[in-house]
Amino acid sequence: MAISLGVITTPKTDPLPARLAALRTEFTDLIAEYRPQVVAVEQVFFQVNVRTAMSVGQASGLALAEAWLAGCEVVQYTPNQVKDAVAGWGGADKLQVQKMVQARLNLSALPKPADAADAAALALCHLAMSPMLGKRRADAASAAVAAHSGGVST
Amino acid sequence: MAISLGVITTPKTDPLPARLAALRTEFTDLIAEYRPQVVAVEQVFFQVNVRTAMSVGQASGLALAEAWLAGCEVVQYTPNQVKDAVAGWGGADKLQVQKMVQARLNLSALPKPADAADAAALALCHLAMSPMLGKRRADAASAAVAAHSGGVST
Repeated sequence: MAISLGVITTPKTDPLPARLAALRTEFTDLIAEYRPQVVAVEQVFFQVNVRTAMSVGQASGLALAEAWLAGCEVVQYTPNQVKDAVAGWGGADKLQVQKMVQARLNLSALPKPADAADAAALALCHLAMSPMLGKRRADAASAAVAAHSGGVST
Repeated sequence: MAISLGVITTPKTDPLPARLAALRTEFTDLIAEYRPQVVAVEQVFFQVNVRTAMSVGQASGLALAEAWLAGCEVVQYTPNQVKDAVAGWGGADKLQVQKMVQARLNLSALPKPADAADAAALALCHLAMSPMLGKRRADAASAAVAAHSGGVST
């Protein structure tokens, strides 16, 4: 099972529309390359302030729309659901999530940056939440692209 | 000068990714049809709560990315900038904006819904803010698609 962990980044000095366009293009390319059955996107509600919510919304909206247009099943989980599913409790910190992702995916090193671990944790959360997937977890895991939308930070 | 005012709506009962996908597709089609030089998108910061910000972000992110990918100039104005430019003061209410848009664009009826008037007001705001456009306002106005991102309300 090949595992690819990564984070899409864009230059902070680029104008916002250019950064979102780059994110959209890279995300569309990733979906075309990996052809996932399922795309899991982080659902953030009330843990953040308005400015962060706007930024996360701009990034996650692109992922939700493009994944749907590509025919993927699109699912959303809150950070607490993800941490609970992966690390055993909703209050787990970033390092605990990184360590659990490393263990669960049998990685030789701690997944970095933390956002990449969060993306993998989202995929693992979906597998845990989907009893139907129980017998084909390996296939599903290799097919899943997890979109952790950290937003376009400024 | 042909003026087309409209609002993209999606069924509230559809899942969020489907609604965002429909918005993305319709927006892309509009850009392909009208080939605007400039796309103006409302910039909302602190007037709203986190849930609204997330929703507005999801819709506006799509518009910002697609407009940029289509080669448009992408500009953003806050609601106060728009109301100030169109109605003369930042605290103007929705009806005042509708009436000013009707007058400025010489429309036979009040533009409805209010979101459509807001979109037209965004375009008028950009014309007011762009001295370079002064001598070709009519052309620019007919070429402008204003994206008023009200978000995907639930």
